This record gives sequence, C-alpha cells and structure tokens, in this order.
Amino acid sequence: MGRWEPGASGRLRQAAMELYVERGYDQTTVAAIADRAGLTARTFFRYFADKREVLFAGSESLQDSLVAALDDAAPDASPMQAVAAALDAAADFLGDRRDYSRQRQSVIAANAELRERELIKMASLAHALGDGLRRRGVPEPDASLAAEAGVAVFRVAFDRWVNDPVDRPLAQVMRESLVQLRTVTTR
Amino acid sequence: MGRWEPGASGRLRQAAMELYVERGYDQTTVAAIADRAGLTARTFFRYFADKREVLFAGSESLQDSLVAALDDAAPDASPMQAVAAALDAAADFLGDRRDYSRQRQSVIAANAELRERELIKMASLAHALGDGLRRRGVPEPDASLAAEAGVAVFRVAFDRWVNDPVDRPLAQVMRESLVQLRTVTTR
Repeated sequence: MGRWEPGASGRLRQAAMELYVERGYDQTTVAAIADRAGLTARTFFRYFADKREVLFAGSESLQDSLVAALDDAAPDASPMQAVAAALDAAADFLGDRRDYSRQRQSVIAANAELRERELIKMASLAHALGDGLRRRGVPEPDASLAAEAGVAVFRVAFDRWVNDPVDRPLAQVMRESLVQLRTVTTR
Repeated sequence: MGRWEPGASGRLRQAAMELYVERGYDQTTVAAIADRAGLTARTFFRYFADKREVLFAGSESLQDSLVAALDDAAPDASPMQAVAAALDAAADFLGDRRDYSRQRQSVIAANAELRERELIKMASLAHALGDGLRRRGVPEPDASLAAEAGVAVFRVAFDRWVNDPVDRPLAQVMRESLVQLRTVTTR
C-alpha cells in the first residue's frame, strides 16, 4: 500500500495507449489499463485523475518547456525568434516520441470530447506564449499575433511530422513550417 | 399556435443577451428569455435548440460567408489574398454588430463551457478555410498554414475591434492585423 512502483507511470501510459488503440477510448476502463500494466487501479489513481488525463498529463510540461525557452531567448530576439526558440523546445520535448504521438493523435481524433480537450490545451498554449511575449515587452497586437502564429506552426508541423512516411526530425519540420508560414503570409 | 412572430428570432436574441449580461448566463432560463421578449418558451424552441444556441446560431452563417468569399476570390489570388477576401466577408457580416459582439464576447469569456464551444467553432472555421484553399489547388502545408494564419488574424482583430475605445471599421482592423502578422513573421 502506497509503495513506489518503479516506472509505474510510464507502464500505465503505455498500457492505456495500447488499449485505446486496440479497443477504442470509450471501451477502455481504468481497471483494464491497470491490469494490462500489471498494477492495481489504486496505483493508477496515484498517477492520473482519470483515463483522460493519461493522454493530457504531458500537456502542462510541454507548455512549461515552451514558455521557459521563450523566457530564455536572447533579450534582443524578435518576437518570432523567441517563438522559434519555444518551438525548438517543443521538438526536444516530443521529438523521440513519434510513435506514441501518432497513436495519441489517432485516439484523440476519434473522440469529440478528447478533440475539445486538445483544443483547450492549444488555446492555453497560445495564451501562455502571448503572456511570455508581453513579459518580454512585445506590444499588442504583435504579441498575440506571434503567439497564435507559433501555435499554428506547432499544429501544422506536428501533424506533418507524425503522418510523414519518412521519420524526419521534428525540429526540422518545425523550422521548415515556420519558413513556409513566412512565405505564405508575404505572398 | 405555430403562428409566425414578426422579428421573433431577433427579439429573443436581444432579450437573451440582456439577461446574460444582467444576471449571468447560468442564471438565465429559457422561460425568462421568452418572457423578456414577450413570447412563449414554445416560440423560443421554434428558433433555438437551447439557450446556448442563441449565442452560436450565427457562427455557421459566418463560416459560410467566409468560405463563399474564399471560393469567389480571383483564380490567380494567392492563398493569403483569398484569406483576406474571406476576412473582408467576416467584417461585412459582423461589422454593424459591435455592441452585440462585445456583449457576446464578455458572456462567453465568463463561462468555461461557452469558451470551449467558441474554440470548437474557431477550429471548424480553420478547417473549412483549409478545405477551401485545397479546393483552390493550394498544396499542403500552405493551405493549413494560411487557414490557421487567417483565423489567428480574425481572432486578434475581432478582439481589438470590440475592445477599442474608438469605434473603427472592423474591415480596417482586419487588414491592419493581416499586415501586422506579415511584419511580425518576417522580422
């Protein structure tokens, strides 16, 4: 009781994703996830509030890493250079989890409630990046526009990355998409 | 019974907004909205599925008008020129409803469920604009990037417009924000 389970959180996350893909999200219970991971439901609830949080527990850390990179960008960096630094941090955070990210995307795409939750996380990210840019002294509407543009690039690049038949580095896809946004908006 | 009520839908919308602002959204009932409009709840339900739909009934028409403008843009228009035409249509659609739009925004901002609904509508708009650009032959990722950029400009410009102490034409704020996005992304 209350014993620390080595790697329990990772095993639960892996087990949950397998079941969501095999049976569907709605058909998967916490009991089944714990069982697949060789753990108890009690242990599950020590790490996650519910089966939805298994999919979104990383979103907050991801946002924190983007904001930290934005804060750490050189003081003379332009708003988009600071946003580019945040996108590099996102690539570092997610870059070695392409298979997990692709599975997660397909599970979320199949469920309206999860799609909504993901939209809320993306809106929260845009808000946090906007706040970070304003802390750097970027005026409005530049801060909001750069933050929204950054999240647009993040979404489009992430989607390309997980669905690309070739496994290319996420950082590279992010940078290409950022350049492409510039090309598209100036044409 | 079943009688046509002249302007009933507009009166219900106006009454609902007054009550949402006065009492709060959660505290307002359909019965109170109908009463304020001098109509019955039965009449309310002929126009709206529930009290939430009073706020979102226009979103579909707004999206349709943006997509129609995108489709009608000159065949040789660039992706962002086609998106700019869609934003002009949005300004036409909303431009004479600044007070209503400001009230609607404050009601939505105060309620988590309504904020989520609005996020879903914005995601739907980005999706529809992306589809429209792909119909025009715009390849990926340009179509998705231009669509997301367009929605970013729409959101930022709309927010500036409703909160500006000076009542400026929405079309002008949209165009300025579009130019500003270009400046921000190229710097």
